[in-house]
Order: sequence, then C-alpha cells, then structure tokens
Amino acid sequence: MDYGFRKTISGNFADVEVRVREALQKEGFGVLTEIDVQATLKKKINADFRAYKILGACNPPFAHKALSAEAHIGLMLPCNVVVQQSENGIEVSAIDPVASMMAVKNDALGQIANEVREKMRRVVESI
Amino acid sequence: MDYGFRKTISGNFADVEVRVREALQKEGFGVLTEIDVQATLKKKINADFRAYKILGACNPPFAHKALSAEAHIGLMLPCNVVVQQSENGIEVSAIDPVASMMAVKNDALGQIANEVREKMRRVVESI
Repeated sequence: MDYGFRKTISGNFADVEVRVREALQKEGFGVLTEIDVQATLKKKINADFRAYKILGACNPPFAHKALSAEAHIGLMLPCNVVVQQSENGIEVSAIDPVASMMAVKNDALGQIANEVREKMRRVVESI
Repeated sequence: MDYGFRKTISGNFADVEVRVREALQKEGFGVLTEIDVQATLKKKINADFRAYKILGACNPPFAHKALSAEAHIGLMLPCNVVVQQSENGIEVSAIDPVASMMAVKNDALGQIANEVREKMRRVVESI
C-alpha cells in the first residue's frame, strides 16, 4: 500500500479502536463519521465481511485551511482511518492525503496535505 | 477541477440536497455519512464558512467488490458528494473515484472505479 500508513497490533477490535481515537485526538483530530462496514454490508446486501470500520477524522484548523485553499476539497475529506481484522491481529491504516490528493493541482493545498500526512504518520506510529 | 463532476443550479440549499439524495438513490447509492461543514467549523473553531455539506455515498455491491479487490480501499470510501453555496447558486460536485484512487495500483479496482465514475457522472448530470 503506498497511499497510507499501517500497523498491525494484537488486542481486541474494540480496544484498538479506542486507542486509535485517543491517538487521533492527540494530533487534533476528532472523529466526525463512522462506518461499520461489516454491519452495513450484512444489512444492505446480506454479505459476510470481516470486522472493518472506517473512521472519518477531521482536524478543524487544517480542514478550514484546506477548504479555503481549494473549494472542492470536501470531496476528499475527512481523512479516513480504517480498523480491520487481519490474519495477524487488528490492522490500523490511515490515509496519506498527499497520495489521495494526487489529482489536485494546488500548491497551497499541497503544503497542508504534507503537514497532515506527518500527523497521520505519527498517529499510526503511536498506537 | 479535474477530480470530480460538478453542476451549479438555482434553488435553495435544502431542496438541492433532497434532489442530490434522490439522484444518488437512482444509481444505487445510499448516504452513509453527512458532515455539515459550516456548523462543524463554527462549533469547533468558531470560524464562519459558507453553507457546505459533505455527503458520503455508498453503493453496497460496488463497495463490496472494491473492498474484496483491495483491502485498504476503505481509506477512500465512501464516495463524497459536496453541496455548497456558490456565487451563482448551489453547486453540487461528486468525486471521480478514478482520480481519487490514482495512487492505488490495482487493475481489478480500476475497473470498478471506472463504473462508479460513470454512475457519479450520471448523478450530477441528472440533478
């Protein structure tokens, strides 16, 4: 994967999710959205899927700067963090905004994305 | 903008949002997440911002295919649609998943992204 940062840890899913939320908070991110993919796929199309959650994280001052620099960047917000069951434990991954915003040509936004990338890297490292 | 589709229409914000949700539904998308950016920025950092909503749209069969083809693609889901106040009316924009997933090297996912791109294009055109 070259569009995010990841780490696999032992522990149960719910505990890891709590640690992810705490790590996000330390870097100034609140969780604005949450999708329980396993429950959603079961409910909507009766498909079985492994435990998989998408947390939509937002650092308000950075989001404000990004939206002020690029009117449509809401199409790529919030910054997602995924917690999923994997073979070796619970895997946490976080988006690299520099990769996801590759198609956006805007130097001011690029600088903001670089700062958020480092925050996301620290979130994953610290878990 | 070369990472999405957009259209500006007259009408009030709430009515346009309803039309967007109906258009999404016709293409098989439910709205799983919703961020009122204006309200969030006001509450979190007391910043004034124009009316701006991010709707997170998900087509469950396509999401299932995408997640089965690429374990971390939840980092780029759901597909966002933005409704925002602009100078000339209410502007609707929808992500082009082919652009947002540019950094992901996976042919199977590329085919799915192409199909979803056409769905998103039709959503915006039909509003």
